Amino acid sequence: MKPDERDSFSLAELVERFGGVVVGDPGTRISQVASLEAAGPDHLSFLTGAKFLKLLSSSHAGAVIVPENSRDATAIPRIVSSNPYAYYAKVAALLNQERVPAVGVHPQAVVHPGARVAASASVGPCAVVEEGASIGEAAIIGAGCFVGRSARIGSRTRLHPNVTVYHDCEIGSRVIIHSGAVIGADGFGMAMEAGKWLKIPQIGRVLVGDDVEIGANTTIDRGALDDTVIEECVKLDNQIQIGHNCRIGAYTAIAGCVGIAGSTRIGRYCRLGGSAMISGHLTIGDRVDISGGTLVAKSISKPGAYTAVFPMSPHEDWLKNASVVRHLHEMRDRIRALEEEIKNKERNQP
Amino acid sequence: MKPDERDSFSLAELVERFGGVVVGDPGTRISQVASLEAAGPDHLSFLTGAKFLKLLSSSHAGAVIVPENSRDATAIPRIVSSNPYAYYAKVAALLNQERVPAVGVHPQAVVHPGARVAASASVGPCAVVEEGASIGEAAIIGAGCFVGRSARIGSRTRLHPNVTVYHDCEIGSRVIIHSGAVIGADGFGMAMEAGKWLKIPQIGRVLVGDDVEIGANTTIDRGALDDTVIEECVKLDNQIQIGHNCRIGAYTAIAGCVGIAGSTRIGRYCRLGGSAMISGHLTIGDRVDISGGTLVAKSISKPGAYTAVFPMSPHEDWLKNASVVRHLHEMRDRIRALEEEIKNKERNQP
Amino acid sequence: MKPDERDSFSLAELVERFGGVVVGDPGTRISQVASLEAAGPDHLSFLTGAKFLKLLSSSHAGAVIVPENSRDATAIPRIVSSNPYAYYAKVAALLNQERVPAVGVHPQAVVHPGARVAASASVGPCAVVEEGASIGEAAIIGAGCFVGRSARIGSRTRLHPNVTVYHDCEIGSRVIIHSGAVIGADGFGMAMEAGKWLKIPQIGRVLVGDDVEIGANTTIDRGALDDTVIEECVKLDNQIQIGHNCRIGAYTAIAGCVGIAGSTRIGRYCRLGGSAMISGHLTIGDRVDISGGTLVAKSISKPGAYTAVFPMSPHEDWLKNASVVRHLHEMRDRIRALEEEIKNKERNQP
Repeated sequence: MKPDERDSFSLAELVERFGGVVVGDPGTRISQVASLEAAGPDHLSFLTGAKFLKLLSSSHAGAVIVPENSRDATAIPRIVSSNPYAYYAKVAALLNQERVPAVGVHPQAVVHPGARVAASASVGPCAVVEEGASIGEAAIIGAGCFVGRSARIGSRTRLHPNVTVYHDCEIGSRVIIHSGAVIGADGFGMAMEAGKWLKIPQIGRVLVGDDVEIGANTTIDRGALDDTVIEECVKLDNQIQIGHNCRIGAYTAIAGCVGIAGSTRIGRYCRLGGSAMISGHLTIGDRVDISGGTLVAKSISKPGAYTAVFPMSPHEDWLKNASVVRHLHEMRDRIRALEEEIKNKERNQP
Repeated sequence: MKPDERDSFSLAELVERFGGVVVGDPGTRISQVASLEAAGPDHLSFLTGAKFLKLLSSSHAGAVIVPENSRDATAIPRIVSSNPYAYYAKVAALLNQERVPAVGVHPQAVVHPGARVAASASVGPCAVVEEGASIGEAAIIGAGCFVGRSARIGSRTRLHPNVTVYHDCEIGSRVIIHSGAVIGADGFGMAMEAGKWLKIPQIGRVLVGDDVEIGANTTIDRGALDDTVIEECVKLDNQIQIGHNCRIGAYTAIAGCVGIAGSTRIGRYCRLGGSAMISGHLTIGDRVDISGGTLVAKSISKPGAYTAVFPMSPHEDWLKNASVVRHLHEMRDRIRALEEEIKNKERNQP
Repeated sequence: MKPDERDSFSLAELVERFGGVVVGDPGTRISQVASLEAAGPDHLSFLTGAKFLKLLSSSHAGAVIVPENSRDATAIPRIVSSNPYAYYAKVAALLNQERVPAVGVHPQAVVHPGARVAASASVGPCAVVEEGASIGEAAIIGAGCFVGRSARIGSRTRLHPNVTVYHDCEIGSRVIIHSGAVIGADGFGMAMEAGKWLKIPQIGRVLVGDDVEIGANTTIDRGALDDTVIEECVKLDNQIQIGHNCRIGAYTAIAGCVGIAGSTRIGRYCRLGGSAMISGHLTIGDRVDISGGTLVAKSISKPGAYTAVFPMSPHEDWLKNASVVRHLHEMRDRIRALEEEIKNKERNQP
């Protein structure tokens, strides 16, 4: 926590910036955001649904953001907003401005003379920027990052420490890439000949749109022939693997540990739950939600939620039920046989 | 293997250090541990269960650690112990003392003048330690590591090369973190407003307790408002993802590739099998075992083993059985119908 | 894309190098490979199956590689080959020769005086090579890599930036390791004693054979007592976890996000689909294919394809069917009861 960085704002100042209506004392001053349980008198909290009303009644928050239908649910000074969670996001960002490293190339960074680094950019110690690469205005290249030959990093983009961007890849503006992510490694392509694998050169790139966020240790492979494309405002959690030649549509959010095999296209505004796995060469339409742990082996054109998860039980129960799964086909045949038998009996009865 | 580092010990010396009883020649000298199959005359092996008795009879081990009920199962000199595996762990540690780098800050490390590094600590080449960070007594910061602003690394903790610890995180004492791990990246939080994602600032920290081990490329996200907490002596394998605001109870062991979504609490002494996935906002009690590959979507309060895995078959058999899964509900209805029909017949029979 | 690097070749020159037969103008010049859709007049494309014949008819490719049975399927100049995909791999490699960094140790690399680096090798900036390590002829150690004490990197092997190889591990010749991979971290071994975990020292190594490729952020743990072995020409995609003491047989290809628990042996020429999970201490024979998302909990001796995946449905349908899974055992009993009842009735009928 960085108290030295924080300012305080009155509710009146907040609604001037972000809209909404104050109910209660508009002079109430706020210095930080907090959950309803943890909030103290100089904290702003938020209420997103009726199930939190109980917490609201016992909260010590100095102020709270409430939806319109809870305008009168508390005596705490409050901001009424149609989208309290988004409102909270904005106030939290205001009160917790990111600390950025000093502008300029650190003396222990290694920047090739044939690279272009904007004067307002920052390149950290032990970062390496290769020939022909370009680093945009106010971009931040963290310690230990690698930006390969002719790669481009857009303006105001931040690479946290130890990120790797391979040659020729292009990262948009205002992108955030967390530590350990690898952008542009070779896709997994090989041909079998005479019992041996031949490597297929991966000559495409990775193109990452503006306002994308990429989590820690996530990997996005470069294309085999064409490019791998992450459209604007895609949000990727940690440890995601995106294969070569995939295209991820704008505003899609993908949770941790998801794998997407090569040449699959995911639409816009999709949500993929943690550990979901999408096979290669599929097309998933817009506004498709995939539940956590689901393996998708077929294309999906219709918006909606899709699931494929074996339901959990105590291990002893699972053993009993799982043993039946290998006989489901036979069970269906037995049901059919019973149905036939009964039908035949009826027919034969006088 | 590092023969130059190894000493040799007699069985008598070992029981003096670690307890247990020698049967056979207490002067038998041991220079290394080995499996029953690979062991030679100067090796100590161990027997953990009856199923290894066969291997014992043909082993060339110089000595062996046996449980009490196998005291007389061999003529090989032996140490009788109530817990042969733990005994072996101790002897193995004695014979294979970790080589540690030289004390001090490497001339090619980059340590901010406002960081505190204990005189007995080691900071490797190309490691970066930022302002306000502190590195404890005898701690080892490997080559290429990044320790962010105001982060704290406890005494005797070892970060292997290329570990990233974000600002303000706190790592306890005697912690081991393997290469590529990322501690304290932003949690996956955003709010949707007018069709766009707004980032939720992640202002919590990661707190890692004493004696924790964290595997290679594992990621632990910082909290959104409160902290993410890994309690003492938790053991994490490689490539695990732990979301923001999780709490992992002491002594819990988690195998590779597990994902735990945000705000979930895992109890003490739990064991999570490889690739298990735990949804967010759940509470898993103490001493719960989750089988590998299991998706947990509900809280679990009762100790025991839980499983959710589709049983494997040859692909052709799987196709037949899986096709039935989509009709299970209908099958149950057909069984009910058959039961009704038979009951009705009985009623109608004279 | 690197036009400056590209040469052009006539079809006649290509068949002189790689075999096959030209049909049409052998003087047709080719400067790059491309897909049938994207190809222009100086591009070579390829046809791998009948389902692409439609694309062929509308392609603007200057030339195309076709299988023998499609020799006359087009008027485009063509090379007839028994294995068009492998042929394409070779031409692609010819036209897209990898750019390699300058030979020699970068002034900002940190190479211990007791390490051996071949004169033809390249060690990038901020790479660290420890005492006793050896780097083979024409090997490339990328920026920010770590090669631990006494590790060996074979000739013509390339470590992309930010790879970590722990002490004593041995990497063969012509191996490619992508960024973020960690070779030789400690296996996950500990013994419980009196409610506490004791670490088992991991004293084995990782041995990686010739011509192996290892994807970004993949982790391979060192052995506990014996070594972890990756045989020659194994191909590993990104984010794979291989536990201690595993052995992966030659020519086996493993897709992204797969986890293999400790002490498991995988045969030769196996293929493991994305996100598959293999339990520990198993033996999988040669030429076994595991479908994506499949958990393997038993050894497999017979070649063939194996699957264990819950079939996907719209979430509402899944809810209905999944609720039945927990009653499968009971359902089977009900079917049995119905069968008995009908049989009894028949017996009792006159």
